[in-house]
Amino acid sequence: MKMNKKIWSVYLSGEIHSDWRDQIAEGVKRAGLPIHLDGPNCVHADSDDCGSVILGSEKNVFWHDRKSAAMNAIRTRTLIASADVVVVRFGEKFKQWNAAFDAGNAAALGKPLITLHSPEYNHAMKEIDAVALAVCETPKQVVQTLAYATNAELPRNKKPISAE
Amino acid sequence: MKMNKKIWSVYLSGEIHSDWRDQIAEGVKRAGLPIHLDGPNCVHADSDDCGSVILGSEKNVFWHDRKSAAMNAIRTRTLIASADVVVVRFGEKFKQWNAAFDAGNAAALGKPLITLHSPEYNHAMKEIDAVALAVCETPKQVVQTLAYATNAELPRNKKPISAE
Amino acid sequence: MKMNKKIWSVYLSGEIHSDWRDQIAEGVKRAGLPIHLDGPNCVHADSDDCGSVILGSEKNVFWHDRKSAAMNAIRTRTLIASADVVVVRFGEKFKQWNAAFDAGNAAALGKPLITLHSPEYNHAMKEIDAVALAVCETPKQVVQTLAYATNAELPRNKKPISAE
Amino acid sequence: MKMNKKIWSVYLSGEIHSDWRDQIAEGVKRAGLPIHLDGPNCVHADSDDCGSVILGSEKNVFWHDRKSAAMNAIRTRTLIASADVVVVRFGEKFKQWNAAFDAGNAAALGKPLITLHSPEYNHAMKEIDAVALAVCETPKQVVQTLAYATNAELPRNKKPISAE
Amino acid sequence: MKMNKKIWSVYLSGEIHSDWRDQIAEGVKRAGLPIHLDGPNCVHADSDDCGSVILGSEKNVFWHDRKSAAMNAIRTRTLIASADVVVVRFGEKFKQWNAAFDAGNAAALGKPLITLHSPEYNHAMKEIDAVALAVCETPKQVVQTLAYATNAELPRNKKPISAE
Amino acid sequence: MKMNKKIWSVYLSGEIHSDWRDQIAEGVKRAGLPIHLDGPNCVHADSDDCGSVILGSEKNVFWHDRKSAAMNAIRTRTLIASADVVVVRFGEKFKQWNAAFDAGNAAALGKPLITLHSPEYNHAMKEIDAVALAVCETPKQVVQTLAYATNAELPRNKKPISAE
Amino acid sequence: MKMNKKIWSVYLSGEIHSDWRDQIAEGVKRAGLPIHLDGPNCVHADSDDCGSVILGSEKNVFWHDRKSAAMNAIRTRTLIASADVVVVRFGEKFKQWNAAFDAGNAAALGKPLITLHSPEYNHAMKEIDAVALAVCETPKQVVQTLAYATNAELPRNKKPISAE
Amino acid sequence: MKMNKKIWSVYLSGEIHSDWRDQIAEGVKRAGLPIHLDGPNCVHADSDDCGSVILGSEKNVFWHDRKSAAMNAIRTRTLIASADVVVVRFGEKFKQWNAAFDAGNAAALGKPLITLHSPEYNHAMKEIDAVALAVCETPKQVVQTLAYATNAELPRNKKPISAE
Repeated sequence: MKMNKKIWSVYLSGEIHSDWRDQIAEGVKRAGLPIHLDGPNCVHADSDDCGSVILGSEKNVFWHDRKSAAMNAIRTRTLIASADVVVVRFGEKFKQWNAAFDAGNAAALGKPLITLHSPEYNHAMKEIDAVALAVCETPKQVVQTLAYATNAELPRNKKPISAE
Repeated sequence: MKMNKKIWSVYLSGEIHSDWRDQIAEGVKRAGLPIHLDGPNCVHADSDDCGSVILGSEKNVFWHDRKSAAMNAIRTRTLIASADVVVVRFGEKFKQWNAAFDAGNAAALGKPLITLHSPEYNHAMKEIDAVALAVCETPKQVVQTLAYATNAELPRNKKPISAE
Repeated sequence: MKMNKKIWSVYLSGEIHSDWRDQIAEGVKRAGLPIHLDGPNCVHADSDDCGSVILGSEKNVFWHDRKSAAMNAIRTRTLIASADVVVVRFGEKFKQWNAAFDAGNAAALGKPLITLHSPEYNHAMKEIDAVALAVCETPKQVVQTLAYATNAELPRNKKPISAE
Repeated sequence: MKMNKKIWSVYLSGEIHSDWRDQIAEGVKRAGLPIHLDGPNCVHADSDDCGSVILGSEKNVFWHDRKSAAMNAIRTRTLIASADVVVVRFGEKFKQWNAAFDAGNAAALGKPLITLHSPEYNHAMKEIDAVALAVCETPKQVVQTLAYATNAELPRNKKPISAE
Repeated sequence: MKMNKKIWSVYLSGEIHSDWRDQIAEGVKRAGLPIHLDGPNCVHADSDDCGSVILGSEKNVFWHDRKSAAMNAIRTRTLIASADVVVVRFGEKFKQWNAAFDAGNAAALGKPLITLHSPEYNHAMKEIDAVALAVCETPKQVVQTLAYATNAELPRNKKPISAE
Repeated sequence: MKMNKKIWSVYLSGEIHSDWRDQIAEGVKRAGLPIHLDGPNCVHADSDDCGSVILGSEKNVFWHDRKSAAMNAIRTRTLIASADVVVVRFGEKFKQWNAAFDAGNAAALGKPLITLHSPEYNHAMKEIDAVALAVCETPKQVVQTLAYATNAELPRNKKPISAE
Repeated sequence: MKMNKKIWSVYLSGEIHSDWRDQIAEGVKRAGLPIHLDGPNCVHADSDDCGSVILGSEKNVFWHDRKSAAMNAIRTRTLIASADVVVVRFGEKFKQWNAAFDAGNAAALGKPLITLHSPEYNHAMKEIDAVALAVCETPKQVVQTLAYATNAELPRNKKPISAE
Repeated sequence: MKMNKKIWSVYLSGEIHSDWRDQIAEGVKRAGLPIHLDGPNCVHADSDDCGSVILGSEKNVFWHDRKSAAMNAIRTRTLIASADVVVVRFGEKFKQWNAAFDAGNAAALGKPLITLHSPEYNHAMKEIDAVALAVCETPKQVVQTLAYATNAELPRNKKPISAE
């Protein structure tokens, strides 16, 4: 059966210090998937300073942070609200509470959630992984998951699977 | 009165072992209906194994199943959420609890529901049929229902109806 | 200030025995309004018989009616849910409880409601008019209301207004 | 199995010129059902004049009606929103568009709906009956339906039923 | 820390031919859990006939079934909507599509879901189990799960667990 | 990483007596931002009289106002409901309660809110500013905020910021 | 018909510099209405300073205000969300944008709204009055409106009304 | 003005290794606040093992974690959904992504959020603090915030505040 294809909006949340978004974007492009990718501003310094740069500087760093966090939320909240699927990446550095916060938002909004993190964080991620629909270790797995979700394409040239 | 036409998204849930989706797709195409069709991945083996193929195999078949069921849900949940109408087909084989689950989801989301099943399941289907807006026995009836819903076309070349 | 225009979906509910929909469609077209019009199936006989014609006839007229009412609801519920504005027309004939039911649906969904009826029904319509954002007597007023809502066009060539 | 009982809120909408609410209230009381009944103000004159009596009279009857309709809606909207089940009665007199409007509201809010009307209105009521979960002809049937819904009590001393 | 206790509403959906509800009710009572239990009418014959007994018999068994299914839904829909947690039991007999439908409803409404079924249905249940927060094989496990959820009581007199 | 761009809908609410909307529109155009702008009818006289001009004049100025306010709400409510972001401007004249009302609507609907007002109103605006994600003093700041939110563009040619 | 009475939650928003809340509370008490009243903290100085008093003082008055506004919102948002009816009072002093903001919140949440203000603000209040279900000039009218809404009591010892 | 008091449900999320919940409970009790406190299971070992203890052990620690995380979510999701206010505590140990996830959930559900953490985490917490209505450093401040929100009590015996 031939079916017209919906363009899926996929929001890539979380870590901004490695090239995982590029890897996913490249994979999505190479596979020709019907996917529109979005994400937060990934320039760390801009993300930290945007509020003060645009609205005026603050002497108190707490309010400096507040202004930028709120300004970033204009983008984040809008794009998560309009996403079909949310992917959240947890890396090695920082507390990354904003990533977990995004995951909580997405879950409460009923968005299918995909997590991406090293197995060493499995225990710390257990509550979020428990509501995720796929727990990936590599960007390639995310692309394969998206290819399967949108196009029903499965990379069967892998070794036979043991279970069942 | 001439009216512009909305493109309707219709999700075809349920049985994946007969060609009912192809029959509906063909009927929709032949009638030139303003309809975009979607459905789950219909390759049974892929649907069963996708989780392990992409994310790694599991020794325990319960978790092998869990991984694939969750992965399929990325597609299912997204497409049901964005559908205008949901058609659910119940066939002869298997428990088909996932089809009934999809119907429950669609009903709770306020989506118009069309069921498609043999009359021999009428009693077992009574709770779901009671919230459905049409109970069909054939794919042809589904196409006619969709033609009527979207284009107000009724196949009046049928025999006169008895009631009223 | 120049602004891009949103295409508005306007659903025309209610009476199907006069040409009020055509008048509105013509007015909308003539004024070049950015509006997409929808409505129920307006062929009374088809609307009464669709369920039995497609799904099989019923001896009992109550169930004959039920089948058709449910089938019509596939269209009605979908289009009201995706409408920006709902116009409900009350005419001279019949009980028209389905029109009032549509109005109740639209109101509960937060859709701006416009009513269209003769002043002689003002008292009977008072509960519905009280939630409507415009109470019109003529299709022309509906078109002017839609022109104002979508394009901010006001027919000022009318006589000066008395109040204020 | 013994279960604690929830107190159900049942809103009785519609006709205010016969004693059907009293009959239901009496039946509910006699059967000791765990039900809290509510309804609109049933004094027709007060319902018509409340707005002007409290807020000041209007020369224009259209606005006289508007004030009262809106004031009645404070009660109606609040109680329908907090109801578990909505019963809507359609009688012989008046247009009763407000009753159908209440039914549309209740349906859009996902409230189980019970209709109560003479069979002579079956055709006119077909769209509302199609979303109702029970179509009753007598207040006694409404009480029996509520007894079954809340207490699982069925009046089996009736004659054996023919179907099945 | 001492905390006041919320009374939890737990709805027991599904199979009505074994005493699993009684076992859970007894366990809940013995453990003194702050839980209010609800469920469907469990008398199969009444559940099948309620519509015709109260509203009048039907010659056509399809509509006989429809009337009763809708009438049962007054109870089912109301209690699932007001439940905190939904438990769904799948047994050996019948298609049980209504149980899976209830599960789909509960999931779409965001209710925590607990499933109860024999491991032999694990594969057929995989889509529903994937959204459930606990998959139980015995009523005792359901009671222990509820005791843990409401009172944070864990039966640690069990053998030491192997993992971790 | 290259990403396709979503077209954002931004609603410009509030003051209609200065050219702030034009300044924002011009800034958005010059920067080539992927933004669709909307707003209320900005012709004060039309906004005051629309109801009476289209639907008939009123002797009582209270109802004259009511008719126009409701008619304007068709546009306002529809466009706020479909907006991604809402900007609310408070100027020097009038009570501007409708602007604050729009802000309350937007906040309750979860729309990211940007306020635009002179610092002299900071104290009076504190409750609304507390839910806003950016508090701007100039249209230029609004454009920069929108450029950052949609395109992640930050005007770094500004002086270095002091905090952090 | 005798009916059990629901206890209504009524939130009194707006002006905090006159005794209108006391007048309403007294009226509600004297009439024995089934109403639970709530409102914001009405001590102006505390409302202005609460954030800094509890969380630490701020040098910048903008952030001093922010802290208090947010802290007051804990109460305001919670109580408006759990109210059945919201009354909003507009007085002579200050901008009162927070009152209009509360009204916008209540309207978007579907809460029946009652406004209370002098007729001299009719024009400025027209957008909010247009969604209100009663526009009162005195606390006594508010009490009478609440008495009518909750108890169907109408003070008919007034002069005969002119219209109709 | 005397007002009846609503009992507020406050959910205490996050860190389970210090006695902050006890401090808040004691403060709430001492102040006689109209507050009902809830929180997760705070016994770390039980929280980690509950799934396997009740439902059967798992060889694979990933699924051992999954079972427990899901089981804990029955309590967490239910209580956050029924809370009026959510307090989230971030401590020194662990990743605490579940706490940030709870915060994201609460925010998306529109619950007023209070955060409790050391100033050293201000930067890492900036996105969550930006949606919080109060950012506290001590349990005492949380109690004072709750006393102000529920009872309008402000500890004015503090030093005069500098700003304003």
